Amino acid sequence: MSALEERVKSLRRGASALSMTDDDTRKKALLAMADAILARRDEIGKANAADIEKAEKDGTSSSLLHRLKFTDDKIASAVKGLRELSQLPDPVGKVREMRELDPGFVLKKVAFPIGVIAMIFEARPDALVQIAGLALRSANAVVLKGGREAENSNRTLISIIREATEDIVKADWILGIESHADVDTLLTLEKDIDLVIPRGSNRFVRYVMDHTHIPVIGHSDGICSVYVDASADIDMAVRIAVDSKTQYPAACNAAETFLVHRDIAPAFLPKLGEAFRQCGVKIHGDEEARKSIPDAVPATEDDFHTEYLSLECAVKVVQSIDEAIEHIAEHGSHHTDSIVASSDEAKDLFFRSVDSADVFANCSTRFADGFRFGLGAEVGISTSKIHARGPVGLEGLMTTKWLLSGNGEIVADYSGADGKSFHHKELM
Amino acid sequence: MSALEERVKSLRRGASALSMTDDDTRKKALLAMADAILARRDEIGKANAADIEKAEKDGTSSSLLHRLKFTDDKIASAVKGLRELSQLPDPVGKVREMRELDPGFVLKKVAFPIGVIAMIFEARPDALVQIAGLALRSANAVVLKGGREAENSNRTLISIIREATEDIVKADWILGIESHADVDTLLTLEKDIDLVIPRGSNRFVRYVMDHTHIPVIGHSDGICSVYVDASADIDMAVRIAVDSKTQYPAACNAAETFLVHRDIAPAFLPKLGEAFRQCGVKIHGDEEARKSIPDAVPATEDDFHTEYLSLECAVKVVQSIDEAIEHIAEHGSHHTDSIVASSDEAKDLFFRSVDSADVFANCSTRFADGFRFGLGAEVGISTSKIHARGPVGLEGLMTTKWLLSGNGEIVADYSGADGKSFHHKELM
Repeated sequence: MSALEERVKSLRRGASALSMTDDDTRKKALLAMADAILARRDEIGKANAADIEKAEKDGTSSSLLHRLKFTDDKIASAVKGLRELSQLPDPVGKVREMRELDPGFVLKKVAFPIGVIAMIFEARPDALVQIAGLALRSANAVVLKGGREAENSNRTLISIIREATEDIVKADWILGIESHADVDTLLTLEKDIDLVIPRGSNRFVRYVMDHTHIPVIGHSDGICSVYVDASADIDMAVRIAVDSKTQYPAACNAAETFLVHRDIAPAFLPKLGEAFRQCGVKIHGDEEARKSIPDAVPATEDDFHTEYLSLECAVKVVQSIDEAIEHIAEHGSHHTDSIVASSDEAKDLFFRSVDSADVFANCSTRFADGFRFGLGAEVGISTSKIHARGPVGLEGLMTTKWLLSGNGEIVADYSGADGKSFHHKELM
Repeated sequence: MSALEERVKSLRRGASALSMTDDDTRKKALLAMADAILARRDEIGKANAADIEKAEKDGTSSSLLHRLKFTDDKIASAVKGLRELSQLPDPVGKVREMRELDPGFVLKKVAFPIGVIAMIFEARPDALVQIAGLALRSANAVVLKGGREAENSNRTLISIIREATEDIVKADWILGIESHADVDTLLTLEKDIDLVIPRGSNRFVRYVMDHTHIPVIGHSDGICSVYVDASADIDMAVRIAVDSKTQYPAACNAAETFLVHRDIAPAFLPKLGEAFRQCGVKIHGDEEARKSIPDAVPATEDDFHTEYLSLECAVKVVQSIDEAIEHIAEHGSHHTDSIVASSDEAKDLFFRSVDSADVFANCSTRFADGFRFGLGAEVGISTSKIHARGPVGLEGLMTTKWLLSGNGEIVADYSGADGKSFHHKELM
């Protein structure tokens, strides 16, 4: 057994102990974690400075450097996040169904922590703090693999978190790993890891999905579309298109493709072209679209399969809402798609027939987010159809148990022609 | 592209069409399916007779022959099941969460069919009818692979079901496959199959889990335990033990292991031994247990990892409830475990700390079943912690979509220091 395997086995036992802790204990641990991070922020700053120095030497991009930097503001906000998490209602033990099978014979479905979760995420020390907090709140043990560039920050944060919490929860619940070889080993430990949540580049998430039999939730691509229906309010459609594309182009919920009904194209497209020109968005247009936006470059089939993640997009004129829906089914990534329409019929059809995690009407695709959805916090966005779909909050870190409490009931008494029958009375 | 791949692609389009059908259409199709099976029962009988003849020639076991035989009674009961299914509330579109993000900006989480589900199951024609019915009720397309011994019956049933329903739902939604090679191909089609539900032998289910990246729900092992606490009512404990072991020994929810607190062992074990002797149950006992049941054979460590599925079991005396809980964590398969106890404290501890799909108190493990739980019908029992755990009914065949309906909202308006904030008002 490798060293990593042994440490994960210890985490499995820790998960079991953690699942038994009460709400107050986990709240106390979250607050202790917050206090320790504040108290030891100099130490964290030093480790972070070492990461930044190395990243600068390596010529790391400014956007990555920006995410890597764990400034005092970010530390304060991470600490605030932990304190807010401690105030959220305890997800453990929440009753989801309750039914009396027969008088006094009561079945409950209750929420229970999943166990050991592996989270793989980008080089953002604040993400580490948030993920560790979510795991502790939901009583799950966690293996953390943060971006390589944040190695020193991660190591320091994990040891601070462990020292602040282990005496309170009395469980080995948090483990950091650093090498790619360890990730590969991790992906084989299906007996002791219950769920993998990978974030980061599309290629990396796809790699994880292809190399493990452990359940994975997450998303590789975010090819989101905005469809502008013939019934759309044109000014609204322009505002939504601009927000969906430019408010944060690197986000997975930014729009990449704009589909425009032919009846509204001549009126809408010139305005879209003008708005995008002002924001510096490059347009790849199909032949019909380029009639109204002459400076657009010709779109290839590939453009409609591309997640630009930058100020670039593809525009296509469609003959009908059905063509738009088909286009999304063929080219989209089942993440987030929005219709702009004033017709209720069109909105209804779009809601019913687009098979994506998030289907929106008359608002920006950028609203696809756990915080905006009111989930408290977000572990990631899942395009899987299993377990959790769309923004995943604390609930996505829970499984359930069926608890059945009887008074000596046996199945033989409920069998055969003369057997008793169940009354299945819903109690909630 | 192989022929199978093309047929599955067609099913993917069919799933999309099926997801758009309304409740009445699917009800009508279920009733047409029921009528067609009744009307064409001679044809079904002939195909089934051919399967039986071949199975008898091959020296198939009588229990398999019994399951294979699609008698008039079984046909009538399958048809009744379909009619009952048509009366269940439509799972599609059921609102699970509803929240206003800001005035007039409403988010809903609604149930939606998963898409294309592959079901692999034992040689039971009645199971085929039930599974096809569940798929149709939940608007999912389905690939069916039944036991090889039922090949003729399956082929006939699938063509009858297809002919009776396709004109009504206007969708290619049901496909039968027969060869192991096709199963292997199927397991690679992760783009077009959303979920695999395998039933059957442990070895086969394990094979499926190890050979696909498609999500799988199901269970390979069913090592269920009954723990008899020091506080147990002895007569109740004997009745529960007998029912859990003997009411249907071949079922996955039958008990294999009995753990007995040392304080009650001298009073309980002789009675258990006597009851098991009368039912013909062979006992593998640990040293302590054999002091009270002299005719038990010595238990090896392997016995506590064995799913006998027959009139055989393992018995162990434990020093404490904690030892019982640890034993179950180490040896059980997280399926169903039951405690017999009159102490509320003991029951509570057992409920909180046993991490199994079904945790019972003072009743037989045999109650772990979708029908008995009041789920209407059962696709299978899952020991996975993801998506669905324990008996899986119609709800396990559903995913969700987030539908967000606005009036031109953009994220830019909710950003920055002066940005609007969400009011996140729960509407249900």
